[in-house]
Parts: sequence; C-alpha cells; structure tokens
Amino acid sequence: MMPIFRRVAVIGKYQRPPAGAAPESSREVIESILRFVAEQGCEPALEQETAELLGLDRYPVLDIDGIGRLCDLCLVVGGDGTMLGVGRRLAGFGTPLVGINQGRLGFITDIPLDSCQAALEPILHGDYEEDVRPLMHACVMRGEECVFEALALNDVVVNRGSTAGMVELRIEVDGVFVANQRADGMIVASPTGSTAYALSAGGPMLHPSIPGWVLVPIAPHTLSNRPIVLSDTSEVAIEVVGGRDISANFDMQSLASLQHGDRILVRRSAHRVCFLHPRGWSYFATLRKKLRWNEGGS
Amino acid sequence: MMPIFRRVAVIGKYQRPPAGAAPESSREVIESILRFVAEQGCEPALEQETAELLGLDRYPVLDIDGIGRLCDLCLVVGGDGTMLGVGRRLAGFGTPLVGINQGRLGFITDIPLDSCQAALEPILHGDYEEDVRPLMHACVMRGEECVFEALALNDVVVNRGSTAGMVELRIEVDGVFVANQRADGMIVASPTGSTAYALSAGGPMLHPSIPGWVLVPIAPHTLSNRPIVLSDTSEVAIEVVGGRDISANFDMQSLASLQHGDRILVRRSAHRVCFLHPRGWSYFATLRKKLRWNEGGS
Amino acid sequence: MMPIFRRVAVIGKYQRPPAGAAPESSREVIESILRFVAEQGCEPALEQETAELLGLDRYPVLDIDGIGRLCDLCLVVGGDGTMLGVGRRLAGFGTPLVGINQGRLGFITDIPLDSCQAALEPILHGDYEEDVRPLMHACVMRGEECVFEALALNDVVVNRGSTAGMVELRIEVDGVFVANQRADGMIVASPTGSTAYALSAGGPMLHPSIPGWVLVPIAPHTLSNRPIVLSDTSEVAIEVVGGRDISANFDMQSLASLQHGDRILVRRSAHRVCFLHPRGWSYFATLRKKLRWNEGGS
Amino acid sequence: MMPIFRRVAVIGKYQRPPAGAAPESSREVIESILRFVAEQGCEPALEQETAELLGLDRYPVLDIDGIGRLCDLCLVVGGDGTMLGVGRRLAGFGTPLVGINQGRLGFITDIPLDSCQAALEPILHGDYEEDVRPLMHACVMRGEECVFEALALNDVVVNRGSTAGMVELRIEVDGVFVANQRADGMIVASPTGSTAYALSAGGPMLHPSIPGWVLVPIAPHTLSNRPIVLSDTSEVAIEVVGGRDISANFDMQSLASLQHGDRILVRRSAHRVCFLHPRGWSYFATLRKKLRWNEGGS
Repeated sequence: MMPIFRRVAVIGKYQRPPAGAAPESSREVIESILRFVAEQGCEPALEQETAELLGLDRYPVLDIDGIGRLCDLCLVVGGDGTMLGVGRRLAGFGTPLVGINQGRLGFITDIPLDSCQAALEPILHGDYEEDVRPLMHACVMRGEECVFEALALNDVVVNRGSTAGMVELRIEVDGVFVANQRADGMIVASPTGSTAYALSAGGPMLHPSIPGWVLVPIAPHTLSNRPIVLSDTSEVAIEVVGGRDISANFDMQSLASLQHGDRILVRRSAHRVCFLHPRGWSYFATLRKKLRWNEGGS
Repeated sequence: MMPIFRRVAVIGKYQRPPAGAAPESSREVIESILRFVAEQGCEPALEQETAELLGLDRYPVLDIDGIGRLCDLCLVVGGDGTMLGVGRRLAGFGTPLVGINQGRLGFITDIPLDSCQAALEPILHGDYEEDVRPLMHACVMRGEECVFEALALNDVVVNRGSTAGMVELRIEVDGVFVANQRADGMIVASPTGSTAYALSAGGPMLHPSIPGWVLVPIAPHTLSNRPIVLSDTSEVAIEVVGGRDISANFDMQSLASLQHGDRILVRRSAHRVCFLHPRGWSYFATLRKKLRWNEGGS
Repeated sequence: MMPIFRRVAVIGKYQRPPAGAAPESSREVIESILRFVAEQGCEPALEQETAELLGLDRYPVLDIDGIGRLCDLCLVVGGDGTMLGVGRRLAGFGTPLVGINQGRLGFITDIPLDSCQAALEPILHGDYEEDVRPLMHACVMRGEECVFEALALNDVVVNRGSTAGMVELRIEVDGVFVANQRADGMIVASPTGSTAYALSAGGPMLHPSIPGWVLVPIAPHTLSNRPIVLSDTSEVAIEVVGGRDISANFDMQSLASLQHGDRILVRRSAHRVCFLHPRGWSYFATLRKKLRWNEGGS
Repeated sequence: MMPIFRRVAVIGKYQRPPAGAAPESSREVIESILRFVAEQGCEPALEQETAELLGLDRYPVLDIDGIGRLCDLCLVVGGDGTMLGVGRRLAGFGTPLVGINQGRLGFITDIPLDSCQAALEPILHGDYEEDVRPLMHACVMRGEECVFEALALNDVVVNRGSTAGMVELRIEVDGVFVANQRADGMIVASPTGSTAYALSAGGPMLHPSIPGWVLVPIAPHTLSNRPIVLSDTSEVAIEVVGGRDISANFDMQSLASLQHGDRILVRRSAHRVCFLHPRGWSYFATLRKKLRWNEGGS
C-alpha cells in the first residue's frame, strides 16, 4: 500500500547535543528514521541545520521554507519546545507535524523514539488522529508603528524584570476597556499554552477545541483579578501603563525594554498548526499522564 | 414613536416579601412599572403569581407559559436568582428578558429600580444591547432511565453531604475517559455560571461568547486536578463512583440521594436565553463593579 | 542490649478486612509483629478489638485505656486514619506511637510492613526520631451548654449539606471579631491536618513545629477570604450565622444538624501525640514523596 | 499629665513630593505635628533629610542613628513602604514607631493625617496597642563569603528576569533538603510581608503572633509546590541552581546578577520592630478593611 504522504521531511533538535551526549547517537537516530521513511515508500528529506549539525549528506536537504513548500509531512525529533518552533515556522504552509520524543513525552510530542517505527507506519499510510491548534499573531505597537511582530503557539507574556516592582497593564478587548491590572505580568495563552506557563500561574486548561484565549494575571495585586477566557475572534490589547524593565515574550522569544504606552495586540492568526498523532491518541490521556492524575498519589 | 415590543409582561420576585418588608411597596413598584409600560404604548401583562401575591387585579394576568406564548418582552423585578428562574422557564419561547433590581445590582440584573423608567424607554423602542446566554440541559441516568431532567443557566453541581467524606466521580467527555476525581464535588458551569459558585471554587471567568463549559473540581484531593474548559458541543458525563449522601444540583434545584452508578449527563440545550441591557452596557464593566477591580483597594 | 520500651502494644486496623481480603493474612501479620517484639526482649500486648477480630488469644490483651496505662509504646498497623484514631485515644496517656503501613505509605505511617522488623529494631532500642504533634480540643456550644466535645489531630470542619446553599459563619479569635464568611464551609487545621483536607481546599502546609492553626475557607464567596494562620494559644470561635443542614466534623467524626447560634470553639489541647520514626526520617522527604515533588513530572 | 515618651522624632516621606504636589503642604503637615508634640510636653526632633527636603530649621535635627540613640518614639508620616524603611533602620535601637498616613491607610500605617492629633495624644501618654514584628536577616553567600547582607521586614524574594525562563532553586531548612523548585521565583515572607507580595502569589496570611515565615513559590512548574509555613527559628537556604538574570530582593532593595551556586540564607534577626497603634486597634479590622471583607460585594 502506498503512503498518503509522498515527501516527508525529518527535523532534529535545533540545539547541539549537550556536552556529555554523543552526537553519533542523534545521527543514528535521524538516519534510521530517514531510512524507515524511504522503506515505507516516501521520499525523505532532511532539514538543513540538522544535516549540518550531524554531518549527514546522503539525503536531500531542504531549509524550513523548502520543507514547507515541498513536503507533505514533517517528522520532528525533539521535545515540545522544538515542536513549537517548527510549528510556528511551518504554519504558513500547512504542513502537518509528527513529534518523536527521545526523553520524557510532552503534551504534543507523544511518540517515544524507541517504538517510533510501529507508530509511524500507520500514520504514513493515513491512519492517524488530527489535532489542529490555533496560532496567535502578536504585534507590539509603539504609537502607530508596529515595532515587533511574532506568531505564538503557546502564549504571549508581558512581565516585569527581576529587580523591578509590579507592572501596571491596561487591558482592552476589541477596544472595550477591561481592567487596569497591577501584577508581575500577564499571560495570554492559547489552548496549547494553557497547559504550560499559564497553568503554573493559576490558569485553567482549555481544550484544543475551544476557540478562545485565556488571560492569566501573574501574582496580581487585586485578589479578584482572576483568569478570564476570551473569544479568539477578539483582539486583545495590553498597554504598558506603569513599571520598569518590562518585556514581551512570544513562546519565550523575547522583546525587551518595552516603553510606557506600548501596546501588545494579540489576535488569531489566519494559520493553524496541525499535529498528527497515532490512532487512539487522546488529549485527556495526555493530561492524565503529564499531570499525574489517577496515580493513587496523595 | 411606537415601541418595538407590543406585549410586555412584568414579573416580581417569586418569594413573598420577608416578614419585615411592607408588601405595599412592592405592589407600588410593580404597578408603576406596568403603568409606565402602558404609557409607552405597550400592552402590559402581569405574571399570575406576582398578581396573586400583591393582590393586583387591574391588569391582564398570564401564567409563565402564557407570557412565553403571548408576550414579546418580559421585565423581571428581582435579583440574579429570580432572573435565572424566569430565564429557564421562558427559554423554550425565546422571550427576551430585562432585569430590574431593587437591591445591589447583579451580574445580569443591571437596571436599578429607582432609575428604571429612563433605562426602559430606549429598550422598549429598540435601543439595547443583546446578551445571549447558552443553557445546559442535564439529565440524571440511572441505568438506561432518565430519572431527573433539568435546564440550568448557571451550573450543574454534584457534591457530597455535610457529614460524608469525598465523592469519587468519573468524568467522560463524548464517551472518552477524562479522569476519576476525588473531591468535595464537581461543578459544570456555563459562562453565566462562571462568575457564580465556580469562581468561588477556583474556576476562571468565561466570556459569554465562549461556546464552552468549565469543569471545576471542588477541593480536589489531587492538586493537579485543575479547572478545564470544554466545548459546549460535547456531552459531559459525571458518574458517581464512590461516596455517600451525594446530590446533584441544577442552578440550586436539588436532586438528593444519588446512587453509585448514576450518571449526570450535561449537554447544550437547543434553547438560549436572551437578556437585554441598556445601550452602553459592558460585560467587563459589570465584572469590574462586581469584583471591585480598579478601586484602589489593597 | 535491652530495649528501652518494656511493654509494647500492637493494634491492627479497627475495621474488618474488606470482603475480598483473606483475614488470615492480617492475623499472620499481627502475630509476626508480636513475636518479633517478644524476641527483642519486650513484653507484647494485643489490643482487645484487634484480638477479637483476628481470633488471636495467645497474647495478653488490653483495651485502649489499658494500653495507655500500662504500655510504653504502641505499634499501629494501618493507614493515617487508623493512626489518627489511636493517637487521639492515647493522647491523654502520652504513649508514643509507631505506624506500620500495609499499603501506600502515609504522612505519618511511614514504615512499610514488609521491612518493618529492620525498622523496628533500632526504634525499640531507643534509636528514633521523635515527632510531636499538637491536638485540638473542640466543643460545640449551644447557648451556655457544651453539647459536643472532641479531640482532633487533623482538623475541625464546619460545612454545608449537599443540597443546601452556602453557610454563613462568624469567626472570632480570642473574642475579637475576624470576619463573617459565606462559603461551603470552614476548616481549622493543625499542622498535621494541613497536608490533608485543608491542602485540597487551598491552604498552606504548616511545619509541625509551627504553634498555629490554619483557617481555610472552602469555596468562599468573597475572593479575598484567604487562608490565615493563627496562634494555637488563641481560642478560635466559629458561630453558625446562616445556612441549612450544617455539620461540624472533628477528624471526620461528625456532629450533624448544627443550629443557628451554635458556636464551635477550638483551642489547643493540653495533650499532644508523639509519633516515633526511624532514624533519618524527614518531614520534608515525606512531603516530597507524597506530593510527588522533584519527579521530573510536568 | 506628663507624656511617657520624652523625646519624639518626626520623619516625613523620604522621597521628594511628586512634581505636581506643592511641597509647602508637607512642610505645614510636618510642622503642625512637631508643634503638637511640643504642646504635649515632649521634646520634638526632626529627621535630617526631612528637614533638608522641607527647609525646616526651627527644630532640633537628628539623623536616623541619632533618632535611634536619643529618641523614645518616632512618628512617621508616609505609607507602609516608608514605615518599612524606617523600621529596618531603627530596629537595632528598639525605638517604637507610629505611622501617620496622608493617603489611603496601609496595613501598618493606620492613623489618618487629618485626625492625627486626637489619635496621638493618648499614645504619647501611654495608652496604645503594641504590635511587635519580627525581622528577617538575610545574607547572600558566594562560596564561603557573604557578598550582601540586609534586613527585611516584609520579604526576601529570589526571582527571574523578564526575558529569562524559570529559575531552579534548591531549598534547605536547617541544612535539611526540602525541594528543588522550578518557578518564576520564591518568596520568604514574614507575618508582616504575608499580606503583601506573598498574598498576590497565593500565600496565606500569617498572624503577627506566628513565629514563622511562609515560603511561597511564584508560578511553580510543579502544581503541588504549595506555600509552606516554617518556624522562624530555622535557617532557610535558597540556592540558585539554574536560570539566568536572577535577583534577590529584600523588601524591594535589589541585588541583581546572582550566580549559580549563590545561596541566600534567611534567619530571624535578633531585632524586632515595634509599632504603636491607637487603643482599640485590631489586626483583623485592618484585614477586613484592606481586603474589603464583609462589604456585601460579590
């Protein structure tokens, strides 16, 4: 039977392996996946930086844009952070992603490396669960000018520096005043990001089917400033009103030195990211596992 | 100018006034509203129990079903609880509601009695903000039989009795297992209910435009059992697995003595409730006022 | 070398084994501990109900009061709940307790059954960590009369029934007004109880060395009603001001049907409970284990 | 009747008045208090910086150390922040403090300026409530060397910078390992500080009589890393294990650029600060007012 994905790219972790780890193992890992993809009848391609990092030159090499333009599927070997990065960069092309994890499984990278061939085979032949996630588009307005622009799969965070007091932020939704909040900062999280930093700051989980963002204040001065879930068709504006040494962060990509009057605008991107999971994958099973529910713990 | 609502019903608080309160004051209140409605060119009608309670016989009297069938608008004098009750009963008819509040303003009853004529006049002539809220339909299944059925605008709550230990509940969404939770209980709240009991139990606020429910565990044994927002197109099932003296509550209407194996099914009702507010009404302004944001408090 | 504890009592779980469990196994367990105690040079004694339940008649039998009067140490086979019960009943005698756990280890029962001999031997010979816990003395005043009195090692809880609305409670400390609170209920927890129900309701952990109680409101209506830690030399009074179907619970022993005006008074008992742990025991290690810290989980 | 405090110092706000405010008003305020103190039979003194700032030269001037050595009481005109600063600097001398507040009352500055004479008179004559608060002594150890040392009345905070990821901190108490925590940061708060930043981060309130600190993790990665109250006779050590751009803050005085391996040691200072309040002052009344309890809010 023919695979339904013809051209399949493989991307390894962007960062070099840590000092202690033998790079050969990663090379072998990536090569074995490329070989397996070829055996399944697909045309494998290797992401350029991965190829350079590992010194792998036997396979066609493409940069990220090339993968987006030419490939039908992208296998990512790494953790949730790697997936987020690749997801943002491929979002404009619509290329679906599969996450293969060498270490502890993540919220979105759920195929363990050592059994990845058994998991990949049905996926390559069209048997998978589709998991579509919305993207946030954020821009930082200084006066009428957009001075920074980014996509975020997880969250947009505005927060204070380590030696500064609280920030004061003015929140508006579709031009309607919501609140002035004094806090360590403010998180705007997507459903994907709701199980990341926003959860630590006291936010709820949002099922991926919820067309909304959650605004989570970090250590708010006013105790009734609680998380609020807003429609993702709204434009959320966060204006810097007070505080010093303030940054905006987009999936951890930072823009430092915000000024008073700067406005961070968050709206839904036209693009979405599509993750493929093995048949039988369940969002709730992932939550149970990652959050250690039902383990009989205290 | 003609009003756009022809027949307009008035409903007072369902309960008799407390011992100390003079009933005449309510009677005057209701009469003055009926008179004002007539002066505006509408045909006023009085809800039957209100009429009996106040001894008012000069106006056409209708029971709730009659109001639903015959009236174009319903003015409710009372607090949020009264509005919820009337809203549930009129939901099948689609009659819009306006809330007039004698005491402290609520989340949905936002017209103060003493200035209600100025607020009502533009509404009667078609100048208002529409605020549509979803309804939950819940039924309690015992085996294959539905032993109780109710609508809820705020929340469906399953909880333990005062002398019993924790309940154990099995949660499923669209037939997919979510978690077994040991807790004092579990709240399924609509956006409307998200600012009521669910907020006290640690849940987030859901903007009324969010097509979702929030599941909030009450004092959960496992600390990572956090609130989760689910699509309102899903069916949520809560099965009673363990515990004693357990009840289900639907907007505070109770069904006591649940048995192990009972399943409470919650899904979106086909009906919705429509509240009308004065032009300029803002959901966020209501939050700021009710939750005392931005008051300069500590 | 002679043990430092001469007479050593053994108590099994108070409840009969559940239907599925073979009672012989428990009998063997208890007998092997009694035999081990005798081999170590101590005089073993068996608690009366345990003896009757297991049909064990070869050892001297004492009721709980007899154990308190005559024994120097008491070994408890069971979980945290069993320990709490025995601890309260022996508190007046000052008999130290050792907890042996057949199942999952608890916060205070920390010796696994299958390796208990190795753990007990040094304890019997005086090599142990002492862990002294304060007790709460609570009484329910109706007018001038005390209608109920109890000791509690974990917590005193006042809470609502399953079909009732919020309770309203008036809190005083040493006769000084603290607050009126509307909530599902109120927990007064000792350091021992701070890792039990109070933790689920949002309270902090109190190290056992803290001479204080923590008051934790359960799902409070006012969001700024947060847990507060009070000196255990204070008398805390909780008066039932409003609500229906209200109970008081003392380590889960219940007094139902509280009336408006009833006052629950909590003060430190003159007695304390002393648990003995194997050398090297650490309170913080127990927290890490029970709360699954540092496991690399998400 | 003679006042019981002979020499009474007055300190104004340390900072210059903001641009818009007329400095003359402050000068009049301070002068009227000095005059009143003299009329009561005390010897007034003016703090040096206050004198310079306001151009007041008719009264004896003392620097802070001089006030500590020579005065029996110190009146502070300002907010909680000013009181904290003066309290730390006078702690070694034991001089009691009275707080007079021009704006919104604080947790510890509770005498409104416009009625301060009526409140001060009984205090000067010995009729007051004493409110003694513990101080934290913190030092930052780099290897064997203490590179920074400070007193704190409110809190010691270790936290991350605005563009950095989580910090990883290793907590020890009296040399015993507690936990490794990944979070935005960690707060060690005194009872005084428990109603400040620690409350925003989810900590409990500690009554001033509690001889303990509360450790509050800020947005902890592991959801069961909850606030814990520790004895103030313990030494708490926070070691920087991971993260970038980390600072330590002592009542908001910052030490930036902590390095991996730095250890922040917190123990109880030998000194305490004593605030005097008008007779009838109540800690709980202050909580009710500042946290807006019992206001009938939602």
